[in-house]
Amino acid sequence: MASSEEEQKKATIIDGKAIAHTIRSEIASEVQQLSTKHGKVPGLAVIIVGSRKDSQSYVNMKRKACAEVGIKSYDINLPEKVPEAELIQKVQELNAHPDIHVLAFVLLKISFAGILVQLPLPAHINEENVLNEISIEKDVDGFHPLNIGKLGMKGRDPLFQPCTPKGCLELLSRSGISVKSKRAVVVGRSNIVGLPVALLLLKADATVTVVHSRTTDSESIIREADIIIAAAGQANMIKGDWIKPGAAVIDVGTNAVDDPSRKSGYRLVGDVDFEQACKVAGWVTPVPGGVGPMTVAMLLKNTLDGAKRKIEQ
Amino acid sequence: MASSEEEQKKATIIDGKAIAHTIRSEIASEVQQLSTKHGKVPGLAVIIVGSRKDSQSYVNMKRKACAEVGIKSYDINLPEKVPEAELIQKVQELNAHPDIHVLAFVLLKISFAGILVQLPLPAHINEENVLNEISIEKDVDGFHPLNIGKLGMKGRDPLFQPCTPKGCLELLSRSGISVKSKRAVVVGRSNIVGLPVALLLLKADATVTVVHSRTTDSESIIREADIIIAAAGQANMIKGDWIKPGAAVIDVGTNAVDDPSRKSGYRLVGDVDFEQACKVAGWVTPVPGGVGPMTVAMLLKNTLDGAKRKIEQ
Repeated sequence: MASSEEEQKKATIIDGKAIAHTIRSEIASEVQQLSTKHGKVPGLAVIIVGSRKDSQSYVNMKRKACAEVGIKSYDINLPEKVPEAELIQKVQELNAHPDIHVLAFVLLKISFAGILVQLPLPAHINEENVLNEISIEKDVDGFHPLNIGKLGMKGRDPLFQPCTPKGCLELLSRSGISVKSKRAVVVGRSNIVGLPVALLLLKADATVTVVHSRTTDSESIIREADIIIAAAGQANMIKGDWIKPGAAVIDVGTNAVDDPSRKSGYRLVGDVDFEQACKVAGWVTPVPGGVGPMTVAMLLKNTLDGAKRKIEQ
Repeated sequence: MASSEEEQKKATIIDGKAIAHTIRSEIASEVQQLSTKHGKVPGLAVIIVGSRKDSQSYVNMKRKACAEVGIKSYDINLPEKVPEAELIQKVQELNAHPDIHVLAFVLLKISFAGILVQLPLPAHINEENVLNEISIEKDVDGFHPLNIGKLGMKGRDPLFQPCTPKGCLELLSRSGISVKSKRAVVVGRSNIVGLPVALLLLKADATVTVVHSRTTDSESIIREADIIIAAAGQANMIKGDWIKPGAAVIDVGTNAVDDPSRKSGYRLVGDVDFEQACKVAGWVTPVPGGVGPMTVAMLLKNTLDGAKRKIEQ
C-alpha cells in the first residue's frame, strides 16, 4: 500500500455492480441446487406500510433481485394509517405460522421465509417495537439487538449479519484486501452501518476507530486509515488529502446533490470526493455502483442462508 | 490536559475504593428508602458451581458487599459435576418463579432477585448456553448478547450495563473527566470489558479506537489517547512514554506477578506501569483499589435498579 506522488497512480475502482452480479449468480446456482435436491426454495416476506415512492422503489428492486435468483418474494402491503399493534400482529403471524401463506409455501415450495419490514415506518409507529418482534431466525436484515450483540461478541455469531456492513467486508475480501491488523476508520456510527461495520472489522482483527459528528479531528484520524468506511451521509465530505496514499476506500454514502444538467435535477454522490480519491487511494468504490448493489446481494445471501439452515435442521 | 516535563507533575490518583464507598453509601440509603416505603428490598441469587477458591473468594466479597448495603443475597451451590441441563434448569427456575424461594421472598421481603452465575464454569459446561438462559430482566451482570447489542445501538438502552465497563465510566465522571469528543483508546476487546467499554464510550460521544493482540502499532495509537482504558491482561504492558501527558488512565488489568518479598509470593499489578504513569498521566487508577471495588459497587447498583424497576412496574 504505497505510491509516490509523481506517479499519479489511479486507484483501482471496486466494481460493486460486477461483484454483486457474481454473488447473485452464486446464489442462483445454490437456490437451483436446493430446489433440485430438496424440492424447496427460499422465500422473503416484505412488509410495506404506506406508499412512499422511495420505499416502493427499493422494494421493487428487492423483488426483482429475488426473482432473478429464484427466491420467492411476496409483499404484504399495509395502509399508511395501520395501527402499530396490527403491524406487530402481522409480524408475529409471519414468525409463528408460515402456513398462513399456505398457497405460497405449498404451491411455491418455500422452505423458509425471511421477514423484512421496509423502513422508514410512518411517524405514529415505533420502529424499535416492530423490529424487535421479528423472530431472530427470520431477521434477514440482521437489525435485531440480539444479532448486533452477537456480531460484536467474541465466540458468538449472529444468525444474520446486517446487509450493508456485510457487503462492505465482502467488497474488501473479493478485492483481495486483507483486514487483519490494518488500521480501519469507520466514519459514522449508525445502527445500520457504522456500528455493525465497526464490530465486523474488529472481529476480523482490524484495529478500528469510529469517528462521528462529535469527533473534533476526523480529518487527521481518517488520514491514518488503511481502510476507510465512509458512512456519514455527508456529500463529498472526505477529500483527497484526507486519504492515506494506497488506502482502500469503501463509500457507503448515497447523497442527492443538485445537478441542473440532469433531467431529474439531481445526481447521487457518496461521502467521498470520488475524483480526488481516485488520485490517492489504492482502491475506491463508486457511488452509485459500489456498496449499493452489494446490500441487495447480501439480503439475498442472508435469505438463502436462512433457508439452508432451515433445511439442514 | 497539559503538563511540561520540567514540572514532573504527579498524576491525580483516582481512588476507586473511596468512590466505591461513596456509591455503596448512596445505594444503602436507597435500599433503606425502598424498605421503608414499600417494605421490600432487592435480592441477588448467586449460583456457584464447584469449589474453586478464587470463585469462592469473589462470591464472599459480593455477599459481604450485599449485606453491607441491605441487599439480601443467597447462594445456590451446585457440585462441580452438575450436568449443564441441571444448571440451566436452576437458572430457569430463578427466572420464572421467584416464589420457589418463598422463605426468602416472604420472610426477607425481597422484591426482585438479580441472577449471577459465577464464572468460570467447569469445562464440561458451555458458558454461553447458561448465560443466554438468564432472563434479561435479571441479568445484573449485563452479559446477555441482547444487552450488549442495546448497549451499542443508538436509541436503545440495555436493562443492565456490564459492571466493570460501567465502573470505568463512573470513575471518569466522578473524577470530573468529560468523555465527549475525547480520543479514547481501549486496549483489549474481551466480551466482559474491552468490547462493552468501547460501546459505552462511543455512546458517550468519545472518538473510540480499540487496539488488541493483532494490532501492530498499539504504542503509537495509545499515545494519542486522552483516555486510556487498559484491559489487556498484560502486566505492566503500558509504559510511561506510551501515555500522552495529562491523559486519564483507567487500569482494568489485575495480573499476579512474582514477589518473593511477600508472604504470598506474589502481588497484583495492572496493565499499566503505575509508577511511570504517575509521572505523565493527568489521572491514573491504582491496582488494586481502582477499578476492582467499582465492579462490585456497580453489581449492587444494577441489583438495586432492577428492584426499583420491578417495584415501579
